[in-house]
Order: sequence, then structure tokens, then C-alpha cells
Amino acid sequence: MNKLTINCDMGEAFGIYHLGDDEDVMPFVTHANVACGFHASDPNVMWRTVRAAKRHGVKVGSHPGLPDREGFGRREMKLSRDETAALVLYQTGALRAFLDAEGMQLSHIKPHGALMGMAMKYAPVAEGIADAAIALGLPVIGCSDSEMTRVFDERKISYACEFYSDLDYDDEGRQIITMKHDPVAPEDAVERVLRALDEHTAKSINGRTVKVAADSICVHSDTPGAVALAKAVYDAVADRL
Amino acid sequence: MNKLTINCDMGEAFGIYHLGDDEDVMPFVTHANVACGFHASDPNVMWRTVRAAKRHGVKVGSHPGLPDREGFGRREMKLSRDETAALVLYQTGALRAFLDAEGMQLSHIKPHGALMGMAMKYAPVAEGIADAAIALGLPVIGCSDSEMTRVFDERKISYACEFYSDLDYDDEGRQIITMKHDPVAPEDAVERVLRALDEHTAKSINGRTVKVAADSICVHSDTPGAVALAKAVYDAVADRL
Amino acid sequence: MNKLTINCDMGEAFGIYHLGDDEDVMPFVTHANVACGFHASDPNVMWRTVRAAKRHGVKVGSHPGLPDREGFGRREMKLSRDETAALVLYQTGALRAFLDAEGMQLSHIKPHGALMGMAMKYAPVAEGIADAAIALGLPVIGCSDSEMTRVFDERKISYACEFYSDLDYDDEGRQIITMKHDPVAPEDAVERVLRALDEHTAKSINGRTVKVAADSICVHSDTPGAVALAKAVYDAVADRL
Amino acid sequence: MNKLTINCDMGEAFGIYHLGDDEDVMPFVTHANVACGFHASDPNVMWRTVRAAKRHGVKVGSHPGLPDREGFGRREMKLSRDETAALVLYQTGALRAFLDAEGMQLSHIKPHGALMGMAMKYAPVAEGIADAAIALGLPVIGCSDSEMTRVFDERKISYACEFYSDLDYDDEGRQIITMKHDPVAPEDAVERVLRALDEHTAKSINGRTVKVAADSICVHSDTPGAVALAKAVYDAVADRL
Repeated sequence: MNKLTINCDMGEAFGIYHLGDDEDVMPFVTHANVACGFHASDPNVMWRTVRAAKRHGVKVGSHPGLPDREGFGRREMKLSRDETAALVLYQTGALRAFLDAEGMQLSHIKPHGALMGMAMKYAPVAEGIADAAIALGLPVIGCSDSEMTRVFDERKISYACEFYSDLDYDDEGRQIITMKHDPVAPEDAVERVLRALDEHTAKSINGRTVKVAADSICVHSDTPGAVALAKAVYDAVADRL
Repeated sequence: MNKLTINCDMGEAFGIYHLGDDEDVMPFVTHANVACGFHASDPNVMWRTVRAAKRHGVKVGSHPGLPDREGFGRREMKLSRDETAALVLYQTGALRAFLDAEGMQLSHIKPHGALMGMAMKYAPVAEGIADAAIALGLPVIGCSDSEMTRVFDERKISYACEFYSDLDYDDEGRQIITMKHDPVAPEDAVERVLRALDEHTAKSINGRTVKVAADSICVHSDTPGAVALAKAVYDAVADRL
Repeated sequence: MNKLTINCDMGEAFGIYHLGDDEDVMPFVTHANVACGFHASDPNVMWRTVRAAKRHGVKVGSHPGLPDREGFGRREMKLSRDETAALVLYQTGALRAFLDAEGMQLSHIKPHGALMGMAMKYAPVAEGIADAAIALGLPVIGCSDSEMTRVFDERKISYACEFYSDLDYDDEGRQIITMKHDPVAPEDAVERVLRALDEHTAKSINGRTVKVAADSICVHSDTPGAVALAKAVYDAVADRL
Repeated sequence: MNKLTINCDMGEAFGIYHLGDDEDVMPFVTHANVACGFHASDPNVMWRTVRAAKRHGVKVGSHPGLPDREGFGRREMKLSRDETAALVLYQTGALRAFLDAEGMQLSHIKPHGALMGMAMKYAPVAEGIADAAIALGLPVIGCSDSEMTRVFDERKISYACEFYSDLDYDDEGRQIITMKHDPVAPEDAVERVLRALDEHTAKSINGRTVKVAADSICVHSDTPGAVALAKAVYDAVADRL
């Protein structure tokens, strides 16, 4: 994961419930983080999403979340290191079976929602994710200047720090995760992305300049206007991918 | 899976709930079918069970079931071929991640409860299991003279037919699955097993002689007196394993 | 439930997942069948839906389903009479608590999807629903000429037979339930409804005239064009409600 | 709830999984807190437990927990006031339907595990429980000197403070909740209970004297030796019940 990538959370539908324009966003991303049935998705949706990624030549990583579909994995939940490792292994292994069925290789792990948020703050959660990543020999997409990256550096786990093209940042340089994503104009997203890539900074919601890392750009498939935004970001950075 | 094996369903605990004397039965089996979180088990129990198998040198296969913990996967549920394949892939992949973490290889697939029962009767369910087995390159433990074995023969899937040391058989030579397993005297189980191995027959509940295949002997860890029964069966066939 | 009513399945969203234009259809129905957290919905969605019904002066009944969110309660599952009664009691009781919180009375029970389908065919399932209805003193919305209505007649349970304005009927006069509902033109729905009300017949998918009962008209909130259809049906029968 | 009571968490089995000697402990308690299907139990277990309570003349309250069966409702989870109110209403309503079926009245609400623990610390969780209790007109079993009792006093909710006969207390007078309960000798439990009743104090794990309230004594049905302990406590306080 040395070159710039564009990643997107995908396969977050469930049963008859639809979520996100996965298929339409696929042409504009390099890596899909596919939900694994805990915070969203189910075996049928996972297989369908893996096949869509295959058709578009998009790499697939796991997107494990907390066991809380009702809260979409966005409600923090107390987890030990062992519980964390076990649920990342379980979900990532489950997804990998669909990649086997399609003759594809699993690319990476990107924790979802509150699991990512907890890993940024709590060492045992970060260590649990590291345990799973090492056991499966996979790199991780994570967030800079956090417990996560501290643990990953210490344990020599390969990782990419991501920059969110469509989320706001606080004064500490942390993305602000909300239950619903607000719409962002494509040109604003492009401006943020280029600034993050070229100057390694972002403007916080309070107008301050904060440091950010951007090894990978994250776009969402479920924000209003997701496709246009993804296309704009893709076009703006295509020559660096 | 050419030689005789003894298999046992394991890891069917869940959260704080205990089920079966897995650890005590381990010395007397060659293969553990480990539950995968749908009809029973959870990521922590799966990892713990895989580690126990490793300590005892027992091979591990997946034991996927219907998504029905409340009914312990014993209530039939209408499934299409694709749904069946997807849930076997999901569960088997999830378990395999724990084997990876322990440096072990996944040995086989053995469907659980109503999923096994449905595969014996309904071609789409048998085909779905076959799809998953082929995708993952794994042999299956199944039941002779059924839709399952017909499909496996047709698709050239390697399989072992199992004989239940502690279940009754009906006049068609099918094991009778109950919500709770009744106790069986060890000497009776041994007698049944030797007859199945040597004469390829069993006595049905109505006293008739029925044909049975016994490539693998199944013992349970949750029947009353499970350990004594497993030990008796193991001792009786140890030289054929 | 002596007069004609218009009922609609509602509150079938779940967590962040949206389903159906409940709020927009509310003005055109008299009774909402609110999902209870098994095949769809969750406590937050249930409360929100009950409040919406209150605002619109719509009566609320329970819409219990099979414990299968992934299959939206549309996959048949083997249930005993006791299991059926228990799951209808559980779900209906859960919903009633939100009505208590809003000072409303629970109006009726209408089983969902495969639970309704099974009750029409299998006596133990119909008896289980009857057990729950009697225990809670509630009428049921059901389907004519079925095991359900036979059991309800026998046990003197009050019920209304419903006619689906937007589903096809087979040659036995049974509605054809599909995973996704196809769109129906409002004028076609109105024509079907008036024929069912005035002549007690419908045209089957094979063009035959079949007998139907129509104590209550069912409209859906999740079919394409649901609002226009509901309004057309409502306007056509408003003077009979 | 003016007189002394003895309460016990019951109905915490699930599917084929057994937990606690409910039936044997019933003769020695006055109130059963029955699990409602979120942290433990299922509709069948709930009905069975309500029937057992009826046979023994034991009053039944709801024992709602977090939506986390795998963690037995003992893992804290971030909840808003509305989410809390909704899940207490849902679970309590579900249980009440079984009491209706048996001609019984619901007696009270006692939150389970981490839900109780969170209500003692966080005002929004305590307020959510209060919202549900007021909506259903029920008293609550809770813990003294906590956010819970502060909120209940403010909103004039009737409640009983409970003393745990078989748990240790810390230096702040809070019971120490563990994943597994350690065994306690019946005579030690009796001594603690009498001291709590007569002197309103307990000895903390560090040997300090701490203030405790004891409107209700809590015994567990799943501790080793639960029946003997419950009997000893019951016999010691029978004349005060």
C-alpha cells in the first residue's frame, strides 16, 4: 500500500434493505472495504459485493464492525483485546471465503465506525486489531496520530492512513463521525483532498489548520451525491494512483 | 479422508452458556466439527475450541448451521441454493481465520442439524453445500443414500459417510435427530459401531436390519455420559483409525 | 372490525435502513400493522411509527413475523404451536408498550409474510396465533378460506379477511407473495378493490374468476408509487369506511 | 414495595442452553426479575419462567438488558436516553404479554447488568429507564446513592434499593459485578444480609464499613450453591417479608 489509493465502504446493504450506490461508485475507487455481517451486510450481500468489485477490478478488504446491526456499529461497546481480535478474525475470515470463491485475494482490513473510533483511543482495541492483522498477514487502513498507528508502528504492521474527503475534522485533526453523513459539494471535497495530499493539512470545523495524513482517500457511497463526489475526487487524483 | 475417523460436534457453547464436555472428549476423537456462530458458538468460543483441538492434535472442520441460535439450527428453514452456499462459505471462512491464527489447516465441512437434514432431502440445499465445498476445496462429512451423496458423487466432491454411535435409526437407515440426545450405554454404542463397520448394517428402532455406511463415527459431547461413551468407542476402533 | 378498513404494513425500517413511505401513506389508511422487531423494525422505529400513527389518527395493530431479519420474515421456518404463540405474544406485547406510552389502545394482530402464509396452511401455526389472540383479547386480520379462518371460526376469534389491492391472486384465490412487490397502476388497484367489494371476486393470474373476501383492503407502503395507489384506493372507498 | 422483598434474576436460559436453578430457588424468593430476550432468554423461556413463578406464587418483574446476548448484557454500550427508554419499553411489554396470558400482573422493572451499571453512572440512561417506568406505571428495583435513585427521587418514581447477598462491595458501597459469580457460604450471606438490614452497612472488600440500603435482598440462581444460599437467606428474614 505504497501508492495513493481511494477506498470506499461497501456492501452495507442488509437483506431487503438497500444502502449506498456501490455499483455506481465502483469505477472511481481502487479499494472496497466490504462489510462483514456484524454492523451491516449478510452472506448474500457480501458475495454480491465481491462479485461487483471483481467486475470493476477493485481490490477488496474487510470492513469489520461491532456486533450491533441496529446501531450500524456506531455505538461504542466495551471490548477486551481478545474479544476485538476474535471478532476481526471472524469477520475477515468470513469475507475471505467469498474472495476464494471468486479467485481473488483479500487486500486489507479497515475497521468500521465505533470499532475504528475505539481503536484510535484505546490500546486494547488497537492491539486486538493488530493481533488479527498479524495472524492473517494483512495491512490495515487506519488513522494517523492515534493509539492505532502507535500500536501498528510498534508491532511493525503495514498500514495506510486515510483522509476522509466528505467528513469534517475537529481541532485535533480527527474526523467527526456522525450517524448520517451530510452532503459535501464535489469541488469542496476535491479542494480538501488536494490540500491534504499536497500540504498534509485540513481546515478544522473551527477554522484551524490541522495536520492530516492521506495515504488513502476515503469516499462514501451513501452520502447524497456520492457518485458525483467520488468521480470528482477520482478525476482529480487519477494520475497519482 | 480414506481411513476411519471419529468426529464430534464441538464449540457449541455461546457467550456465558456452556454446552458439552469438549475438552474431555477431545482425547477420543480424530476430527472436531466446530460450530461457526450461526446455530451456536461465537468468535471467542470458536477460537478457544480451535486452541483446544490444537493441544490435542485433533483436526478441525467447520460445522455450519442455519441462522437460528434460538432453535439451535434444528428448525427447518426454506433456503435457496445461493443462500445455502453463501452461509456455508461465510461460516467456514470465519472458522478458517482462527485456524490461520493457530497455524492449522481446515480439514472438512460438516453441516449441522436441519441444514444436514435438508441437504439429505432437497437438491438445492445439497448443491449449495457442494458449491461452497468446491470453492474452498474441502471434503464433506455427510450421510449415505441421500440427495447429498448423489450430488457429491455427480460433482466429484470427496466425502465421508458418518455413522452415529449414539442416535437411533429409522427403517430407511436414517438417523433420528432429536432436540435433546438420550443417553446410550457405552457398550451398546460400541456394539452398534462394530456392527456398522463390519457388517455395514444397523438395527432400526423397529428392529429391522438397515444398511448404513460408516467412513466416520460420530460421537456427541453433549449426551449424558459423553466422555465414557467416546472413550469406549475410541478404544474399540483405535487400531483402525 | 365490522366496517370496511384499509390496512397497511408499517414500521418496517430498521436501524439506519429506510423502508416504505409510511408517513406519506398514513393519511390514506385506517389501520397500521406495525412490525415488531423480528422480521423488521427495532424499538426506536416502533416508537416513531406509533407516534406517526397517533398524529394521523390511525389505529395500530401488531405485525409479528418470523425471527429472520435477513430474510424479512419471508422464508418459511418450522414452528410448533407453542413457539408460534410465544413469538406472537412477545412481539405484540412489545409493541403494546409503545402504545401505552402514547395513551393508545392496541387494535389487532396481523401476522407477517411467511408466518401468515404458514398459518393459512398449517393448523399448529394457526392455533398458535389463535392462542395469542385469545390471551390478549385481540381480533386478527387474516385470509379467507384457509386453516387460519377455519381455526378462528372454531375458536370464535373475531377476524377480518383482507384483500390485497396490489398483489396478484392464484387460481385458488390466494394472494401471491413475492420478495419484491411489483408496481400496480392506481386505476387497476381501484378496479380490483371495487370488484372485490361489490362482487366478492378477483381475476387470477390465469384469468379465472376466483372468490375473495374483503373486510379490509391491504395497501403497501413500499411498492413503487405506493402513495398514489393508497390515495386512489382511499378515495374510491372513503364513503364505505 | 414497602415491605422487605427477596428478588432473583430468572429466565436467563436461552434456546437449548440452561442457566440457573430457577425452579429450585423459586420457593425462597418473593419477586422474580425475568429476562426479556435481549441479554438472555427467548419467548419460550420467558413463558415457561412466568408459569413457574405462577405455580410458586412469586411476583414477576421485567429484567431488561442490553441487546448483547453474546456478552450477556454485561458489556457497556453507548445508549441515548431515547434508545434506553425504547429498549426498556420493548422488553417489558414483551414480558407483560406472557403475564396477561397467565392472568398475572407485572410487578416492577429491574435493569440487568451493564444497563443497571450505566444507569447508576449516567443520567441519560437513568432518565430513559424512568421514562419507561412512568409510561408503564411500574416501580423499579435499583441501587442507592446513584444517578438512578437521584433521577427517581426527582421524578417521584417508586423504587426499592437492593442489597446483594452474594456480591462483594467496594469502598463506595457499590456492588462489584463480575462475569462469573463466585460462591458464597450461606452463613456468610445471611450475616451480610442481617447486617445490611439491621445496621444498613456492609464490609467492603478492603474491610471498610460502607453504607448500604436494603429494601430488597437479591439472591442469584446461577451461583454455585444458589439454592442453599437462597434458602438460608429466606429462612433468616422470613418474618420480615
